[in-house]
Amino acid sequence: MRPDEIKFASRFDGISGSAIREIFKLLAVPGMISFAGGNPSPDSLPGEVCGRIAGELLRDKGRVLLQYGATEGYAPLRESLTEYIRDSFGVNAAAETILPTTGSTQGMDLLCKALIDPGGAVIVEDPTFLGNMQCIRLYQARLVPVKSDENGMDTDALEEAIRRERPKMIYVIPTFQNPTGRTLSLERRQRVAALAERYGVVVAEDDPYRDLRYTGTALPSIKSFDRAGMVALLGSFSKVISPGLRVGFMAADAAILRKCVIGKQSTDVHTALVNQAIVDRFLRDGLLKPHVKEICDMYRAQMNAMMECLEKLSGVEEHTRPEGGLFVFARLREGMDAAKLLLKCVERKAAYVTGTHFYVNGGHENTFRLNFSMSTVDEIRRGMEFLDGVFSEEI
Amino acid sequence: MRPDEIKFASRFDGISGSAIREIFKLLAVPGMISFAGGNPSPDSLPGEVCGRIAGELLRDKGRVLLQYGATEGYAPLRESLTEYIRDSFGVNAAAETILPTTGSTQGMDLLCKALIDPGGAVIVEDPTFLGNMQCIRLYQARLVPVKSDENGMDTDALEEAIRRERPKMIYVIPTFQNPTGRTLSLERRQRVAALAERYGVVVAEDDPYRDLRYTGTALPSIKSFDRAGMVALLGSFSKVISPGLRVGFMAADAAILRKCVIGKQSTDVHTALVNQAIVDRFLRDGLLKPHVKEICDMYRAQMNAMMECLEKLSGVEEHTRPEGGLFVFARLREGMDAAKLLLKCVERKAAYVTGTHFYVNGGHENTFRLNFSMSTVDEIRRGMEFLDGVFSEEI
Repeated sequence: MRPDEIKFASRFDGISGSAIREIFKLLAVPGMISFAGGNPSPDSLPGEVCGRIAGELLRDKGRVLLQYGATEGYAPLRESLTEYIRDSFGVNAAAETILPTTGSTQGMDLLCKALIDPGGAVIVEDPTFLGNMQCIRLYQARLVPVKSDENGMDTDALEEAIRRERPKMIYVIPTFQNPTGRTLSLERRQRVAALAERYGVVVAEDDPYRDLRYTGTALPSIKSFDRAGMVALLGSFSKVISPGLRVGFMAADAAILRKCVIGKQSTDVHTALVNQAIVDRFLRDGLLKPHVKEICDMYRAQMNAMMECLEKLSGVEEHTRPEGGLFVFARLREGMDAAKLLLKCVERKAAYVTGTHFYVNGGHENTFRLNFSMSTVDEIRRGMEFLDGVFSEEI
Repeated sequence: MRPDEIKFASRFDGISGSAIREIFKLLAVPGMISFAGGNPSPDSLPGEVCGRIAGELLRDKGRVLLQYGATEGYAPLRESLTEYIRDSFGVNAAAETILPTTGSTQGMDLLCKALIDPGGAVIVEDPTFLGNMQCIRLYQARLVPVKSDENGMDTDALEEAIRRERPKMIYVIPTFQNPTGRTLSLERRQRVAALAERYGVVVAEDDPYRDLRYTGTALPSIKSFDRAGMVALLGSFSKVISPGLRVGFMAADAAILRKCVIGKQSTDVHTALVNQAIVDRFLRDGLLKPHVKEICDMYRAQMNAMMECLEKLSGVEEHTRPEGGLFVFARLREGMDAAKLLLKCVERKAAYVTGTHFYVNGGHENTFRLNFSMSTVDEIRRGMEFLDGVFSEEI
């Protein structure tokens, strides 16, 4: 027998890897202005500072940081996270209810591992983040889409779906959502926490963009309204320090966290220690806040330039109005096909991602997502002009 | 509803976390001479070198190493791994058949994810590594134990078990096995590869200790006899550079690797880049070989001291004779209870791990595992005397 004859586990039935990844390969050509990705700007990555800190840490604490660590996380980081989570999310989480994770992606994976049996229902916003849809699908859950509007997930539709589907989990990105850029309103945040308690559903609150706010006022997290302990908060340092370091965290009730810790033991034992220690130093030495301010100043200008161009973009009937994050989402006139148009745009060296990928059941072929963090203001203006050239020929 | 009323996923039924971890908490007292762990010696951890390399890498390549990377791994590392795998394992693996992983633990997790449906059978040596038994159990597989002797897994018993159980996977640690320290003979390595092909079973060849050879001659890996591509080789830099960095690798046929890559996308996206780049520099700059030689010289003396004491240890009827690695395994006279004796040893500030934990179905209460990497020669002599004091009172 040979490997191509292997019957792989049934969790892979119908899973072929991300369609988006194939598109990204098309875009790796010189001169391409890509609004397709979701990476932080290379200019935002603190190489100099991380190099200095990593050097110091490994020289001074190599015997600790190069050794095995606890699955529960590097103790100093768990401590400094308590303050960060209080300041940024409005949540008083004790150190022992915080689990550093290998990116917030791992947090979602561990929550699914803890909660989902095949056939179980997971409610998600529609559209939502592709990567975590695949994560949920690999646990063979039923994805239950709930529509969203300018105030985020529709909580009336959410309650109806909960009563109908009896889900194990609600997955929500409350702030500057991917792909829409929308933010869940204060009232709805309270309502989500209340529904979780009332119906006994765990909420996976995935909030990696919250610190990237360019205008408006920060809202408390869903977790801050969580009296029952049913909300697991997932955070990340990928957007504000570095994705390459792979450090995020989960803050959750002890009973939930315990299962995630056991799941993590046999997944990667623990998150790499020097990576945890670098993030700890950013928090402990007060490096994060000024760094985030710099990034926000840069991204604000980029977002404003993109919104200005988007207002005038031919064929666009509707678009979101984010107050932060990395993305804006738009809908073209009925009948326009964002996938077909993308091919023409790519020829002119500009690109976006078609919106259909982010919907649980596809469709919505006239939608697309734009990212503004990876392009300069000048590139944004030029790229949006290319798009306008293609779109205007179509109408 | 509250979290302690949640019905967690059924994969956690009967899983309570590692019993051994509870014992380790007992041992965290000053002055304890512990032969219980399996960590590398703190003296073996190259803090100075890693600090210098990490500093350089992040300063010079921060824009790459702090950004998102490919799930498939950091390209320079995949390249330098081809040479390492050829030299160390006798395997010609192309870069695109090598996946850097977040420790070799993740490699095992991804293989299970790719192959195991609930109820599927996985054959393991008995006794075997506790952590990966838990990994397999979390995929709700049936663990099928196959006995081993001084030449490693009994391949006649293995074939019989394959025919009887039709397993999806054989998990084997061929070199300086955990917990026994035994090495699979050359003939048996060839036979395992042949059985995998004949019966269509994937072999997870977990070989993290191979470079820690203190005497005798290295044997080619099972993978080196793998004509069909049914062997997935798992390697690790945890024992020879640093466990805290969490870098290992898998070398496997493209069809198997593809499923593991998709599984990894939603697990941690990719292994942290600076960690991969540090390992790459160890390989590329020729730092690994002299470093391993230093470690081996140190561990050889420690192993010899332990074996000398073990020969004279009261109550021991039989013990293994490793040529490398971190462990030796021993059996006491029938009726002696290693768990009860451990409590007395701990009072005298010496410790080991009882062997029962490493057996699929428990039992073997008169066995125990000794680790020699975490103690100096002097500590080994003193600790073994404490053990002898306790054991001799018992006979």
